[in-house]
Amino acid sequence: MGLFDFLRGSPKQTATIAKERLRIIVAQERSARGSPDYLPLLRRELLEVIRKYVNVDQDAIDIQVKRDGDHEVLDLTVTLPDKAGAAATAAAREA
Amino acid sequence: MGLFDFLRGSPKQTATIAKERLRIIVAQERSARGSPDYLPLLRRELLEVIRKYVNVDQDAIDIQVKRDGDHEVLDLTVTLPDKAGAAATAAAREA
Repeated sequence: MGLFDFLRGSPKQTATIAKERLRIIVAQERSARGSPDYLPLLRRELLEVIRKYVNVDQDAIDIQVKRDGDHEVLDLTVTLPDKAGAAATAAAREA
Repeated sequence: MGLFDFLRGSPKQTATIAKERLRIIVAQERSARGSPDYLPLLRRELLEVIRKYVNVDQDAIDIQVKRDGDHEVLDLTVTLPDKAGAAATAAAREA
């Protein structure tokens, strides 16, 4: 299955008006014990980066951490603000 | 198909010794024209964050940008340094 089929296969949007979304998946494949766990670091940095560019409330950000065998995954979905919110972000970035 | 099946389904590692990898997928679903394109911004910031925590050469980072309909995806794979490299990173972070 290709990347786009996988992304489209995710649970359909419930909101009637299609909200734009930004999804960030961080997957670490760890073969040896004791190798650094980068996910907590990246989680914090990613949130800072997102807040820098996107004007979103905390409840617009969904964060899930999953582990399965040697794979550990951080799955982060941001429901993007509609145009008005985006304009505010652009203005903030120029200021 | 679940997230882990998808990640495991990616092209198998060619190197004989299983190298640890960090994969970051950023997908933006854009419904309206003219909404901000966050991928270029996030691409630059993600590389800065990775270099901050992981001691990797440029050729250890593979970046692909793909577009399919309303989905745009940044697919970034970092082949992590083995233990020696990781120790150097940890020391650098403490300094």
